[in-house]
Amino acid sequence: MKAHLIAIGTELLLGDVINSNAAWLSEQLARAGIDVYFHSTVGDNPQRIKAIVKGALTPENPQDAPDVLIFTGGLGPTEDDLTIATLADLFDSSMMVDVESAAKIEAFFKQVNRPMVSSNLKQAQRPESAQVIDNPLGTAPGIFWDISQYTQRLCCLMTFPGVPREMKAMFPQGLAYMEAFKQQYGFQTGLAIVKQSLHFFGIGESQLAEQLADFMGNANPTVAPYVGQGQVRIRLTAKAASQAEAQKLIEPVKQQIIQRAREYYIGDGEAQLEQMVASRLTTLHKSLAVAESCTGGLISQRLTSLPGSSAYTRLNVVTYANDQKSKVLGVSAEVLDSQGAVSEAVAAQMATGMLALSGCDLALSITGIAGPGGASPDNPVGLAYIGLAQRDHPVKVFRIQAIPKLNRQDIQFWFSQSALFSVLKALED
Amino acid sequence: MKAHLIAIGTELLLGDVINSNAAWLSEQLARAGIDVYFHSTVGDNPQRIKAIVKGALTPENPQDAPDVLIFTGGLGPTEDDLTIATLADLFDSSMMVDVESAAKIEAFFKQVNRPMVSSNLKQAQRPESAQVIDNPLGTAPGIFWDISQYTQRLCCLMTFPGVPREMKAMFPQGLAYMEAFKQQYGFQTGLAIVKQSLHFFGIGESQLAEQLADFMGNANPTVAPYVGQGQVRIRLTAKAASQAEAQKLIEPVKQQIIQRAREYYIGDGEAQLEQMVASRLTTLHKSLAVAESCTGGLISQRLTSLPGSSAYTRLNVVTYANDQKSKVLGVSAEVLDSQGAVSEAVAAQMATGMLALSGCDLALSITGIAGPGGASPDNPVGLAYIGLAQRDHPVKVFRIQAIPKLNRQDIQFWFSQSALFSVLKALED
Repeated sequence: MKAHLIAIGTELLLGDVINSNAAWLSEQLARAGIDVYFHSTVGDNPQRIKAIVKGALTPENPQDAPDVLIFTGGLGPTEDDLTIATLADLFDSSMMVDVESAAKIEAFFKQVNRPMVSSNLKQAQRPESAQVIDNPLGTAPGIFWDISQYTQRLCCLMTFPGVPREMKAMFPQGLAYMEAFKQQYGFQTGLAIVKQSLHFFGIGESQLAEQLADFMGNANPTVAPYVGQGQVRIRLTAKAASQAEAQKLIEPVKQQIIQRAREYYIGDGEAQLEQMVASRLTTLHKSLAVAESCTGGLISQRLTSLPGSSAYTRLNVVTYANDQKSKVLGVSAEVLDSQGAVSEAVAAQMATGMLALSGCDLALSITGIAGPGGASPDNPVGLAYIGLAQRDHPVKVFRIQAIPKLNRQDIQFWFSQSALFSVLKALED
Repeated sequence: MKAHLIAIGTELLLGDVINSNAAWLSEQLARAGIDVYFHSTVGDNPQRIKAIVKGALTPENPQDAPDVLIFTGGLGPTEDDLTIATLADLFDSSMMVDVESAAKIEAFFKQVNRPMVSSNLKQAQRPESAQVIDNPLGTAPGIFWDISQYTQRLCCLMTFPGVPREMKAMFPQGLAYMEAFKQQYGFQTGLAIVKQSLHFFGIGESQLAEQLADFMGNANPTVAPYVGQGQVRIRLTAKAASQAEAQKLIEPVKQQIIQRAREYYIGDGEAQLEQMVASRLTTLHKSLAVAESCTGGLISQRLTSLPGSSAYTRLNVVTYANDQKSKVLGVSAEVLDSQGAVSEAVAAQMATGMLALSGCDLALSITGIAGPGGASPDNPVGLAYIGLAQRDHPVKVFRIQAIPKLNRQDIQFWFSQSALFSVLKALED
């Protein structure tokens, strides 16, 4: 089964909005064994929308013709939103008000306590032979429509709003309609493509690629390195008759790769370092306190962005000014004076002071130069010291240095990655 | 002059990569007065690339035919990278090695101290009648090519790598070639489109639209509201013969809109709330301390993500656990017990406690329910109290409630927006 994605919206052609829907839908369709050959984008112009649809349905090579057209955008209440009406017009089909959709739209406005205007009811209209795809997060339902009678060959279409979170919430229902269509007419399912990302930290992309060189030629799953935000990602991509079989192909290769580079491994999937630290802390029933300087609260923010973070978070501080490091954490004024705020000794005293102040099981500290100002020959931008204190253990300090040419935000993020990684490794011991 | 953008790469059709190039190029072209009618994406498949190009050159309505095709992707050294060779084949043109490009590629490999393989020299090939667009950041040059002799009407094309930073660095040279082409053949320049965003907070999109209703019908600049991340954006879009003239059209309307909704105004362009707060604090030589609970360090992180934040930041704390609120900030244990941690009284005591602890000029506090857990009938998810203490002023407390159905991260961000906005307004008084 083959799909052609069509995004509708003049805002896309003006560059106001990046079409991230195309990538998300493409990945979902690949998982379901549906090949995507083309993406198109067109403005809020009925004549051009029709031209794009006609062109999509009759490609130069009939073998490339799509079995499903998937539209995003143009389902809103304004005059510019004309996706469904234009399709109905193109396929010479009359429109009707979907009673259930109309009731849901009215209920939505009642719930958010806002007045409904008549243009909102336009969103309840659909071609007579189309089915509704519910929108649990907004007022714009989509449609699933078998258009075979108009195209003179088996073909269907789906429409989704352009708002990514609404589209994503609606996609499963659309996919279910499409699967039923596929079954009904005996479409062949293509190969399911399943991807898995493994995240690593503390090693360069080329170094890791070298270490995993023998996997890089792998045919199925393929193995490829990518540089992510402050970490390296290895992506495994498997093709098989079903998602389950593709997953099975991935598993042994995944385990071998993790084994090979265990000391740098963070986690898989969408896992972020803070999630790995949080889950380890929660499992071990340990609490972590953070005393930040150069990262300004970023580490605390990352750790508390997760539901359930009160299990391990009690107190974090951002001691930006030197006198606050002394007053709040008990860092010696003499040491601050003689060694400077960015020093091994200060990182150590911040961590031990934070352990005492918070009463937590672990305390993490960081002091460094995030730039662009504040550097000196001894303390270049990108230098930081990370302290890690645990009860009944000597405090540990790590010196880290970011690669050149990063901006302040990138440096702060990389600092936070390094700090969280040091906690993760300490919790593994 | 009209453009059609064509992105080439199977990775786009698999959803591995989001095509952000299309939006960036579209905005640049709009500024230069070039209309973009369509975007297309196709995989690394010569037959389908040719089909897309032929289709783009002969749209249903000849008036929509592009005067320039702009390609991104498929310029790399691997076998999959076949954009230029496929175009040469389609237009029946022979390829040659560009001597200057070849020398630059060799020099590049010498500079980064990596061995050059013969496939890298493939990147120096171009159709005989094409001109080279230099790539200052990588090994893949692009081409500018007048294809009028093949298309039987005036038309040109440009190719760029898919890597955004390389494409962006190369675009000015491509644009210069295109301008020369335009001049040579007397193309009419379309209108330059210039946009400006104004950011507002503390007012709903529809409420603000109502307040600005008389601007919404404006023809030039057009005025349209958008919901951004935790704030409302009003976008002004002006069209004129030149960028400077378009900017002139925007200015008076912008000033009137700001005047009308001054109490909700944050700033223009890419301005974020933390920047507005930071610049106000810096100008006034005032320092701000933050005591966070439900936002977990996000407010502190946002304020310290900016260079020069040590001018106004001395100490921030995240008092997540109740006993830490008492111990560090002096919040009364009785009040915590009787009113609960999420209460007006606790927000007030956190702010006054933080003012005393930090010695700063202002102290901001926040306590609330970011969810998904921790809610009760009295304290629903999305409820928070913001405290604001200033020396010699009574402490102020604001009760805020987020709209339903937001996730934890969105709620935390909206909380931080509300808190920073309350600081901004306090500094204006």
